[in-house]
Amino acid sequence: MTHEPTHFAQELQALRDRVLVMGRVAERRVRAALQGLTTRNRDTLDEVIAGDRQLNDLQIDIDERCFTLLALFHPVAVDLRAIVAALRINTDLERVGDLAINIAEAAQRYVGHAPVKKLIDIPRMATIAQRMLRDALDAFVRRDTELAQHVLNEDDSLDSLKTQIFRELLTYMLQDPTTIEPSLDLILVSRHLERIGDHATNVAEDVIFMVLAKDVRHHSAEGA
Amino acid sequence: MTHEPTHFAQELQALRDRVLVMGRVAERRVRAALQGLTTRNRDTLDEVIAGDRQLNDLQIDIDERCFTLLALFHPVAVDLRAIVAALRINTDLERVGDLAINIAEAAQRYVGHAPVKKLIDIPRMATIAQRMLRDALDAFVRRDTELAQHVLNEDDSLDSLKTQIFRELLTYMLQDPTTIEPSLDLILVSRHLERIGDHATNVAEDVIFMVLAKDVRHHSAEGA
Repeated sequence: MTHEPTHFAQELQALRDRVLVMGRVAERRVRAALQGLTTRNRDTLDEVIAGDRQLNDLQIDIDERCFTLLALFHPVAVDLRAIVAALRINTDLERVGDLAINIAEAAQRYVGHAPVKKLIDIPRMATIAQRMLRDALDAFVRRDTELAQHVLNEDDSLDSLKTQIFRELLTYMLQDPTTIEPSLDLILVSRHLERIGDHATNVAEDVIFMVLAKDVRHHSAEGA
Repeated sequence: MTHEPTHFAQELQALRDRVLVMGRVAERRVRAALQGLTTRNRDTLDEVIAGDRQLNDLQIDIDERCFTLLALFHPVAVDLRAIVAALRINTDLERVGDLAINIAEAAQRYVGHAPVKKLIDIPRMATIAQRMLRDALDAFVRRDTELAQHVLNEDDSLDSLKTQIFRELLTYMLQDPTTIEPSLDLILVSRHLERIGDHATNVAEDVIFMVLAKDVRHHSAEGA
């Protein structure tokens, strides 16, 4: 059961490359959903809602690569953690793709109404969430725990933007009932974007665990 | 690197037991959050929001068991898939625990207002989501693909309840602006419950993959 280490290293590099590609595809879908919302373009939104065959294929391909690497090379230590991290990141990126669909669905309902307001904070949230995702994946490929930590720190800014959006839209809804329905959809979009940030956070935590074998998921649990 | 197969089988059984325990703890937290909401009990809600050390400890323990089993026994085929399934289910159950907190937070805000209505459909959603989760975990332990498939079929009933809740609350909000804020929190609760159903669905899909090596995540992707 011994295999040439170079072969394993090549396969692991190929796996990392696939994860990066999948990250780019997922991010592109989020961007398209947001663009459809801000430009009120129903066709763009329909395209996002139709789903992405490439993303599904990548997910299955990455899973298969992970299983093959585990079964053939029985890696240990950091190599084992890297493959388990790839399995997890794969799930997170799939969910990001699903959230792009959720955003597009809310946006599709939103553009059926008159605009509630000029969208400023939602595109801002989207920019942050996408950057977090990109940084987390870069951190995975470069095994860069400092960049991963930076991603974890960004989560608070998403949270405070979400709260701000909620408060502002609540004011609109209380003043004018015709804004209730479209405002609800904007609130949902902001929550979907927050969840994309959560997935980026998961990826960053996986990177730290992969490199340092240190579990940072339960920051508050002393001694765990 | 050869190990007695009985030792591996024992360890795998211990892993399954831990996953079941974690499932029960996660489910108990969801139940407590719902109970706090329906009985308007702030103390119960505070307890849920405070988090659950046991759940965090179980998550770390299950992860460690998976890594140890992968590193020491380098399992293949169904055994490898069972361990990867346990890793994934672990993540899903952690999220269910987080969603219990999200439900309790929304409920805490909700009980600060006069009740919008008698809660009927939300407890109904909770019952379905909890049953899906329990069935999915039973299916994992018993390697029962029929039960797993049953869980996948239940997802639609959660979705239609969610839509019904949304429509009903929208009517309240349009008629009486004082119900807007509490109604928003009930809508959030219904979405959190829907997501618990999604996690149960993930578990069920993992079970089918574990037993049949068949990926059922992308039902619509022909030939994938």
